[in-house]
Amino acid sequence: MKFFFEPRGVAVIGATPKPNTGGLSLITNLTLGFDGPIYPVNPHYPEILGLACYPSVSEVPDPVDLAIVFLPAPGVPQVLAECAARGIKGAIIESGGFSEVGPEGKALQDRCLEIARRGGLRLWGPNCMGLVDVRKKYVFSFITPDAWQDVLNPGGVSLIVQSGLLAGGFMTTLMSHKTLALAKACSIGNKSDVDETDLLEYFLEDDDTRVIALYVESFPRGRRFMELAARRNKPIVVLKGGKSASGARAAASHTASLAGNYELIRGALDQAGVYQADDFFELIDLARSLERNFEMHRPPDEKPRIAVFTYSGAAGIVTTDHLEGQGLTLADLSPETRQRLEKLSPPWMPVNNPVDFWPAMEKHGPEITYREGLAALLNDPGVDGIIVHLFAGSGSGSWT
Amino acid sequence: MKFFFEPRGVAVIGATPKPNTGGLSLITNLTLGFDGPIYPVNPHYPEILGLACYPSVSEVPDPVDLAIVFLPAPGVPQVLAECAARGIKGAIIESGGFSEVGPEGKALQDRCLEIARRGGLRLWGPNCMGLVDVRKKYVFSFITPDAWQDVLNPGGVSLIVQSGLLAGGFMTTLMSHKTLALAKACSIGNKSDVDETDLLEYFLEDDDTRVIALYVESFPRGRRFMELAARRNKPIVVLKGGKSASGARAAASHTASLAGNYELIRGALDQAGVYQADDFFELIDLARSLERNFEMHRPPDEKPRIAVFTYSGAAGIVTTDHLEGQGLTLADLSPETRQRLEKLSPPWMPVNNPVDFWPAMEKHGPEITYREGLAALLNDPGVDGIIVHLFAGSGSGSWT
Repeated sequence: MKFFFEPRGVAVIGATPKPNTGGLSLITNLTLGFDGPIYPVNPHYPEILGLACYPSVSEVPDPVDLAIVFLPAPGVPQVLAECAARGIKGAIIESGGFSEVGPEGKALQDRCLEIARRGGLRLWGPNCMGLVDVRKKYVFSFITPDAWQDVLNPGGVSLIVQSGLLAGGFMTTLMSHKTLALAKACSIGNKSDVDETDLLEYFLEDDDTRVIALYVESFPRGRRFMELAARRNKPIVVLKGGKSASGARAAASHTASLAGNYELIRGALDQAGVYQADDFFELIDLARSLERNFEMHRPPDEKPRIAVFTYSGAAGIVTTDHLEGQGLTLADLSPETRQRLEKLSPPWMPVNNPVDFWPAMEKHGPEITYREGLAALLNDPGVDGIIVHLFAGSGSGSWT
Repeated sequence: MKFFFEPRGVAVIGATPKPNTGGLSLITNLTLGFDGPIYPVNPHYPEILGLACYPSVSEVPDPVDLAIVFLPAPGVPQVLAECAARGIKGAIIESGGFSEVGPEGKALQDRCLEIARRGGLRLWGPNCMGLVDVRKKYVFSFITPDAWQDVLNPGGVSLIVQSGLLAGGFMTTLMSHKTLALAKACSIGNKSDVDETDLLEYFLEDDDTRVIALYVESFPRGRRFMELAARRNKPIVVLKGGKSASGARAAASHTASLAGNYELIRGALDQAGVYQADDFFELIDLARSLERNFEMHRPPDEKPRIAVFTYSGAAGIVTTDHLEGQGLTLADLSPETRQRLEKLSPPWMPVNNPVDFWPAMEKHGPEITYREGLAALLNDPGVDGIIVHLFAGSGSGSWT
C-alpha cells in the first residue's frame, strides 16, 4: 500500500488546463504539496501549469508508482491496461459511473478489476475522492484547492470513509473548525479492490496514525478486519452506515454495498474492542477524545456516574432526564467535593449534583468558578464524567 | 392578570443608581419601553435616572398597579404588606432566597403568600426574571439592557418558563439567532401564587399569542391546566423537567417543585392534545413550526413517511438509520415525483429516496436543484415530511 501514500511519481490521467474542472484541481493540488514528479496525461495539450503533458501513460518517464484516473467511466478499462503495462503499481479511480449506477456500471467495474488483477495493479475506488496526507500536504484528490488549503490541521487521527463527496465536504467542514487533527484521510468509494481492511492494516503500522476512524457501509472482509482490530494496538472507532433495513437498501444504491446483518457486525466489533458511533459528529468526537488519551470505559458493573456543572437549574434538570435515558447516572459527590464547592458558593446555596454554579459565578466570576469547580469534580473518585454547560452569554456580569 | 402585563404604573422596590446592579437595570429597562409612569422606591436617593425616587411604596402616587420587588429576601414580607395597603394589585418578586434554598426560605415564602392573600395582592415569583412583552418592549426584569435591546423579535409565540436564569439566557440566545418570534416571555420561578395555569388561561385569550410554549417542572393545578389545554383553541408545547427519578430530585432543589409521576402527566398532556418536547431546542422548534401553521400530525395507522434530500449518499444512509429509530419511515416516491427528479439528474443517476441531489447540483447549480427538487417532493401526497441536507461548503462548485 505504500505506493498509494508515498509514490515516487504520480501520473494524472484526465488532467486538463480548463478552469473549474476536477482535472485541473488534481494537478494544482499536487503542485501545492507533492514533492515528487507530476505527470499530466492528456493527448490534447503539450503542458499543463508548466508541467510537461504526456499523450498517454505509456510515455510517462520514470519514476512513476501511482496513476490518478479522472476520465469518463467507459474509457477507464483501456487506461488501466496501459498503467499495468507501464509498470505502475496503484491506480486511484476518482470518476463515478460504476457499480453505483446499476448493472452496466457494475460490469464495467468488474472489467477494471480483472484487468488490474491480471496486470498486478492495485485499484483504489472507483467513485471516490482519493486520499489526503495532512502532514505531508499530499492531496491526491479532485477537491478544489480553496476547500483545503487553509484548513489542514495535522494530528493523529486517520479517517477511512466509504463515500465520495462526504469525505471531502465533511472533512473540510471539520477541518475548518480546527477541532479535528488529522494524519491521513481516505475516500474509498466503491472499494472494488482496496478496502477498509487494507487501510486498517496499513494504519495500524503507520507512525503518524494514533487513532483510526471509519465510516463504512459493509465489511466484505469482516473476519480479517476483526482480527486486525482485536490486536488493539491503536484505538479504532467505526460508524456503520446501513444499520437499519431501509438504510441498508439505501447503501446498496450508494456504493453497491451489501450492508450485512448489523446485529452480527455490532457484536463482532464489540468483541474486537472497536468503539462504535451513531453519527458523524459522534465518530469525530470519539476519535478526538481517543487521540487525547481520554480514558473511555464503562464501569463493568454499574452505570457511568456523571457530574453536571451548570449555570441553569432547568438545564441541569433536563440534562439529568437525558442522562438516565442514555444509561448514565448522576454521581454522588463525596463530602470533600461538597466542601470544596460550598466554599465557592454563597452560604444559602445548597450544593447538589447537578451543580448549579450561577451563584458562585455572581460571587467570583467565571474564571475562578470554572477552575475551582471543575478541579473539585475532577478530583472526586466517584465521578466518571462531567457535563459542563458553558455560559455563552454576552460576557460575565451580563445577567445581573 | 392584566395588571401584570399592562399595568397603569410600575413601582420598583430596590431600585438603585449603582452601576452594574439589577436594581438599576430594572429602571433602565422600563425607561426603554414602558409608556406609563415609573416609580423607583429607595429611601437613600431623591432620584434615579432623572425619575423621582420615593422613600417607600406607600408614598408612590397614582396610578400604580404593579410592584417589582428586588430586595434581599428577609425584607420582602414587610414590603408586600405595604404594597397591599397601597392598593397595588400585583407584585413580581425577582429576588431569590426563598423555597429554593431550604426550609427557612420556604417559611419566608409562605409568609409572603399569606400577606398577599390577606391583602388581595397577586404574587409572581419569587426567584424569577419577571416578564417581557416583546411587541410592546415592556421588560419587567433585572436582565441587563444590552442582553435584550437589539435582539427582540416580535411574533406569535408566548413562552412560560419555570426557571430564573434560563429564561433570560436562553431567550436572549434564541432571540439573537432571530429564529424565534416571541409575543411574551414569562419567568415564573418558584411560582408561589401565579403559575403556568394562570398564564395559560391568560394567553389562550391574548390576541398577540398564537402558540404557547412552556418549560415546567411540576403541574400543581394539573386538572385545571389539562381542561384549559383541551379547549385546543391555540397549540401548546410543553417541555417537562424532572421526567426521570433523578431529574425529579434535582427539580425539588431547583424550584422546590414536586415533579409528579411523569407517566401520568404525559398521558394527560397527550389526551389534552399538547405537543411534548424532550429538550429546549425541540421546544422552540415545535413552537416555531406551529406558529407558521405547519401541520404536525402523525398518520393514525402508519409511520410518518419522510423524504431525505441530500448531497451525500453516506449522510442519506445514516439519516435513514436514525429515521427508523425515531418511529419514522422512508417515503415511497410516486412515479410522477421520480420523473420530475429524473429530469433534474444526469441520465446515469438512479432516483431513489434518499434523493442524492449532488449530480443535479453539478449539472444545474444549487438554486434550480433545491427549488425543483423540493417542489417535486412537496407535491408528492406520499411524503409527510422532508429532511433537507443543506450544502454548507464554501460556495457552489467548490467540490468539483
